[in-house]
Amino acid sequence: MLNFFFWSDDGKALNMGKGHKQSGNTSLPRIVILGAGFAGLTCAQALRDAHASVTLVDRRNFHLFQPLLYQVATASLSPSDIAMPIRRILRHQANTTVVLGQVDAIDRHARTVRVSLSEDEHVIGFDYLVIATGAEPAYFGHDNWKKFAPGLKEVEDALVLRHRLLDAFERAETVEDADERRCLLSFVVIGGGPTGVEIAGDIAELAKIELGQSFRTIHGLTARIVLVEGGPQILPAFIPSLAAEAQRSLERLGVEVLTHTKVEGCDADGIVAAGRRIEARTLMWAAGVAASPAAQWLQVESDRVGRVPVDSDLSLPDDPAIFVIGDTAAVAGPDGKLVPGIAPAAKQEGKYVAELLLRRITGANGDHDKGIAQPTAFHYHHEGDLATIGRKSAVLDFGWIRLSGWLAWLLWGVIHIFFLIGFRNRVIVTLGWLWAYFTSERGSRLITGTGSELSE
Amino acid sequence: MLNFFFWSDDGKALNMGKGHKQSGNTSLPRIVILGAGFAGLTCAQALRDAHASVTLVDRRNFHLFQPLLYQVATASLSPSDIAMPIRRILRHQANTTVVLGQVDAIDRHARTVRVSLSEDEHVIGFDYLVIATGAEPAYFGHDNWKKFAPGLKEVEDALVLRHRLLDAFERAETVEDADERRCLLSFVVIGGGPTGVEIAGDIAELAKIELGQSFRTIHGLTARIVLVEGGPQILPAFIPSLAAEAQRSLERLGVEVLTHTKVEGCDADGIVAAGRRIEARTLMWAAGVAASPAAQWLQVESDRVGRVPVDSDLSLPDDPAIFVIGDTAAVAGPDGKLVPGIAPAAKQEGKYVAELLLRRITGANGDHDKGIAQPTAFHYHHEGDLATIGRKSAVLDFGWIRLSGWLAWLLWGVIHIFFLIGFRNRVIVTLGWLWAYFTSERGSRLITGTGSELSE
Repeated sequence: MLNFFFWSDDGKALNMGKGHKQSGNTSLPRIVILGAGFAGLTCAQALRDAHASVTLVDRRNFHLFQPLLYQVATASLSPSDIAMPIRRILRHQANTTVVLGQVDAIDRHARTVRVSLSEDEHVIGFDYLVIATGAEPAYFGHDNWKKFAPGLKEVEDALVLRHRLLDAFERAETVEDADERRCLLSFVVIGGGPTGVEIAGDIAELAKIELGQSFRTIHGLTARIVLVEGGPQILPAFIPSLAAEAQRSLERLGVEVLTHTKVEGCDADGIVAAGRRIEARTLMWAAGVAASPAAQWLQVESDRVGRVPVDSDLSLPDDPAIFVIGDTAAVAGPDGKLVPGIAPAAKQEGKYVAELLLRRITGANGDHDKGIAQPTAFHYHHEGDLATIGRKSAVLDFGWIRLSGWLAWLLWGVIHIFFLIGFRNRVIVTLGWLWAYFTSERGSRLITGTGSELSE
Repeated sequence: MLNFFFWSDDGKALNMGKGHKQSGNTSLPRIVILGAGFAGLTCAQALRDAHASVTLVDRRNFHLFQPLLYQVATASLSPSDIAMPIRRILRHQANTTVVLGQVDAIDRHARTVRVSLSEDEHVIGFDYLVIATGAEPAYFGHDNWKKFAPGLKEVEDALVLRHRLLDAFERAETVEDADERRCLLSFVVIGGGPTGVEIAGDIAELAKIELGQSFRTIHGLTARIVLVEGGPQILPAFIPSLAAEAQRSLERLGVEVLTHTKVEGCDADGIVAAGRRIEARTLMWAAGVAASPAAQWLQVESDRVGRVPVDSDLSLPDDPAIFVIGDTAAVAGPDGKLVPGIAPAAKQEGKYVAELLLRRITGANGDHDKGIAQPTAFHYHHEGDLATIGRKSAVLDFGWIRLSGWLAWLLWGVIHIFFLIGFRNRVIVTLGWLWAYFTSERGSRLITGTGSELSE
C-alpha cells in the first residue's frame, strides 16, 4: 500500500489519498530528518522552537547510546538501559512527528522520501532534508567474514555477541577435548580503536569472573583474549604515550595486543593474521565501518567508505536544501583531516544544521531582516578522546589534560552518565555500575536468542 | 561428539572416554535434576548439604521468574530484571554442578540422561533422577494458531509479544485505512486465567499511555482490548465474587471481558469465537499449557495435557528413584483435585523430594538408624491465589483473607519482590515499579528482533 501524507502545523497527519482534502497551513516549511542517532536527534531537538513541520524518521523506535553498547555485549547492561524511545524523548515537541520506517529511496526531483514499515509504504514530502543515517560495520571486500566476526552497531549485534561469549564458557565446561576447550576459551577482537580496546578489556574482566566462580571443569583456567590491530599502535587517535599506557593496562588484564598485524582471513576456527593462525571460537569485528547508502539514494559519488562529500555548510554541493551529517558525511575539519565518526562530532553537526535551518526559515518568513545572513561554515571543535580499559582504568586526552588510570575511568563514567538520555536510564546504569564495581556481578548474564540472527 | 562423564565428589567433571581413568569417591550417590525452574531449583538448593553429587541440567543458563514475564511483554521490565544466572545462584554450593543443555533422552535401564548443547552430546549417569522440565503453551490440536497467538513461557516469547504490541501502535500511526488502523489498535487475549487477566490489564494500561502521549495521528484514539474466556468466569481458581470484582476492574481499564466464549479459530486478522469474528492484529495465547515431553522420555502414559502421574511420594509408580515434579507431574492434592501448576506448588514439591532424598541417602549411608523411616506422602499446602489487574489493583484470596483493589495490589507487589531471587534484581524491579507508578514511563519500550522468532 502506498500512501502520500503530509503533516500540518499542529502535527496531525493529513492523509492525501482516497478523497482526503489537504488542510492546515501547508506553507509551513517541511523539514525531514532521516535517522535518530546522535546527529539526527540533536538536530530535531535543536529545532524544537522552529516554525516548521519537522518529521524524524528512524527504522528503530529508540535512540541508542552506542558508546555503551559494548557493555550490553559483555552482559553488564541491558538493552533498555542504553536505549530510549524516540517518541518519549520528543513527546513534548509539538512541531515534530516521529515516523518509524526504513528509508527505501529519495526522489530529489519530486522532493520526497519513500519510507517502508512492514508491508506499508509511505511517501513523505520535504522542503529541507537532513540525512543522518549513520554507518554500519564494513568488511571491505570480505563480507563472508561477517558471520564469523560480527560487528557491534545494533542492539541485536550486542545480544548475538553476548550469546556467543557466554555460550563459549558453557560449552568449554562440558567439552571433552582439551584443544576444543582452549579454542572455546579464546577470543579475538579485530581492530584496536576505542570499541576494540573497550570490548577486549571487558571480555578479559568477564572471563576472569566467569572462570573465577560458578564453573567446575574450567574453574581456574585462563582465557586467551587477543586484540589485533593492523596499524602501529592501538587507539590511533591518541598520542603514542597514552596509547602505550592503554596497551599496558590491557596487558595487565591479560589481553594479548598485536599491532602491525593485518587480518587475512576469518573462519569458524579463528583468524589468520600476518601469516599465522590464531585459533578462537569467538571473534568480534571492530576494524571499520562504512556509511549507510545515502550516496546511492542521492545518486552522488561517495568516498571510499561510502560517505557523502558535503560543502562547508554540510549541504550537498549542488543542493543547498539537502544536508548530510554524522557518520554518513565526509566533512573536512579545521586541520584538513576529516571530522571523526564520533558522537560529539555528530551532535555538533546536528546542532549546526538546525541553527542554519532556523536562520533560513526565519529569513524566508521575513520575520527578521538580518536572518538572511550568509551562513558561517561548520567548524568542528574536537573535545577530546576517551577509551576505557576494563572496569577500573581509562585513557583520556582533552588536549589541556591527559590522564590514564583510575581517575580517567571515573571521569569516563561521569561523562557517559551525563550524556545518557533520560533520568531513569542514568539512575539504573549508575546503580548497575556501582553494584558491579563492588560485587563483580553482571546484571545481564543471560543467553537468549540463537546467537546467529545478525542484523543486516 | 558423544562424551561420557561423571562428577566426582569435589564437583569436577571426570571424562570417561579416551583413556581417562575414573577417580574420586564414585560411591557418592548421583542426583540429577532436569530443569531449573521453581521446582528443580528449589530441589537443588534444598540439597545444598547433601552428601551427594548433584547435577542440575537446564537448556537456559538462567532461572526465569515467570510470574513477572508478562511485564517484559508489556515493556515494563527488561529480561535481565527477572532472570538470574543459575551458576550464580548456586556458585557457593560445592556439591552441585550446573550443565547447560537440552534433554534428548532418558535411558531408564542404563540409568543415564542424554543432554546436548550445540553439536556436543553428553551422557550423565544418575542414581536418583528428578524431572522438573515444566510446561509450554498448548493449542490442543490447533498448532497452526501458534504463529498468530503466541504464548508466554520464555523470554523470547515476551520479546516477540513486546515487538508486536509496540509495532502495532507504530503502524497504526502511519496507516491510511481507518479499518486497518482499528484492527491494529485491537488486541485479543485468549484465556482468562491469571496470566490472561494480568496481560490484558497491562495492555490496557500500555495502550492508554501510548495513545495518551507521543503519537500524532492515533493520539486520543482508544484501543480495543478483548479478554476471551471459555468458562463461566475469569480467574476460575477464585470465588465468584472476587472474580467478578476482577472483571469490573478490567472493565474500568477498558477491557472487554467475554466469558462463555470458546475460540474456534485464530488467523492474521483476528479470532472467531462463539460464532463471531473479532478483528485484531495482535493476539496472545494464555488458554493452556501442556507438560514437557517427560512421559515420552520415560515411556510412560501421560494424562491429557502430557503430565506424568506419580505416586504420593512424587516418584514413578514402578521406579522409586525417578521423581517428576512441577508442571510436568500430575499430583493429587489433599482434596482429590490435581495440584495446580503454580510456583508455590512447584517449590513445595522440589523441597519435598530434596528432603526425601536426604533421608534416603542418610539411610543408605547408615549414618542414622532412624533415617530409613518410611517417607510420608507429599502434602500440598495451598497458600492462596493472586492476580493483578493493571498497575493499581489486584485480587487476592489466601483463605483467611480476601482482598481486592489497591491494598491487594500493594501486597501482590511486596510478595513478588520478596520471592524474586537476587538482591540486585529486587532493587532494580522495585525502583522500576516506583518510577513507573509515579511517571507512567515504561523502562523497556524497545522494538527489537523481528517479532516472529517464536521459541519452539
